[in-house]
Amino acid sequence: MHTPPLQLVIGDKNWSSWSLRPWLAMKVAGLDFEEVDVTLRQSAETKAQCLSHSPAGKVPVLKWADETIWDSLAILETLADRLPDARLWPEDAQARAHGRAISAEMHSGFTALRRDMPMDCTHHRPGEGMNDAVAEDISRIIAIWTEARGRFGEAGGGPYLLGTFSIADAMYAPVVSRLETYAPDLVALGDRDGTARAYMETINSMTEMREWVLGARAQMGR
Amino acid sequence: MHTPPLQLVIGDKNWSSWSLRPWLAMKVAGLDFEEVDVTLRQSAETKAQCLSHSPAGKVPVLKWADETIWDSLAILETLADRLPDARLWPEDAQARAHGRAISAEMHSGFTALRRDMPMDCTHHRPGEGMNDAVAEDISRIIAIWTEARGRFGEAGGGPYLLGTFSIADAMYAPVVSRLETYAPDLVALGDRDGTARAYMETINSMTEMREWVLGARAQMGR
Repeated sequence: MHTPPLQLVIGDKNWSSWSLRPWLAMKVAGLDFEEVDVTLRQSAETKAQCLSHSPAGKVPVLKWADETIWDSLAILETLADRLPDARLWPEDAQARAHGRAISAEMHSGFTALRRDMPMDCTHHRPGEGMNDAVAEDISRIIAIWTEARGRFGEAGGGPYLLGTFSIADAMYAPVVSRLETYAPDLVALGDRDGTARAYMETINSMTEMREWVLGARAQMGR
Repeated sequence: MHTPPLQLVIGDKNWSSWSLRPWLAMKVAGLDFEEVDVTLRQSAETKAQCLSHSPAGKVPVLKWADETIWDSLAILETLADRLPDARLWPEDAQARAHGRAISAEMHSGFTALRRDMPMDCTHHRPGEGMNDAVAEDISRIIAIWTEARGRFGEAGGGPYLLGTFSIADAMYAPVVSRLETYAPDLVALGDRDGTARAYMETINSMTEMREWVLGARAQMGR
């Protein structure tokens, strides 16, 4: 696909759940982009590195020719807007509206899950981080996945939330990684028919997800 | 503008900053919609009322014929997507990308400001709520407004962040209300040339903002 020179500034692959979102979508869309890495968890230095790329001082940041576009969801919406052939949103208007609702719910919510089960994609820490607030978040996420798959998945002709891969999957892929790492009991949390488990397999088996995790291992020296 | 039957479910006008966002944009766009009110701050009852409208259990919720679309930003993007004549995003692609970045930054961030200076649009509480984290949030917001006005405001031909009224203004209007209520010293926080103060006047003088505040007063019996 012909695009201007694209750079995506991201944080460490082990931890940066927000960076994974646009990275994954851009890989799936087959976009040619340069990856620029910022080392997180070094406080002042990290902030300074991020500020050198974007005034919000956070990753991810998309550099599109001379433009700087920050925030995972804004990057994804901008890519969908400018590169319609990448089909980052489904053609069906109802599926698209539903996708936006669940993506925005992820973007501003699930603070307990994000705080207590941080992305740590090269480790397996079953049982860690669980509490009532996290359980409530996970139950809601299972309900979101189950509803999306039931209403739009099969109709959309694919194993992703709205059928084929979309921005909604990019937004929830880091959650799949968290649930792999901390391995909560999904059935007890509401996944009675196994839809959430099957969706996790779909995300985990993506070539692009494997590439991200391999990248994280390399960065961690593991 | 011809649209299907639209209902917007919102919380109390005094407090529901997230409800103000789509309400304001829909009023400015001249959309004909029914307003459905949910009383907030009643804990279990509020949650039950919200759940009766949307599975996320939160306001605002847009009901579009038989569809349910929740989250302020998802509602706004869906309106922009389906009603291009409403011009909720500017035509200029760079302005639109910038608008998405600052809207998303508001959507997921500024937690200190939101926690310590909650929207309370019928009161004046100068000096309350201020602390270092809030000051940092406000300084960043002043920088966002100043950059947007400088790069896209005049070029876009209007007094709003990107020129004419857009989703970005809908996202930041509740912040204007907070800054009116708590009246921090904007100059000390970075508004050296008065751009932020002027932008606040623009938002405050909107007929639709006045209508919202009058509605809040009526609900509060003030």
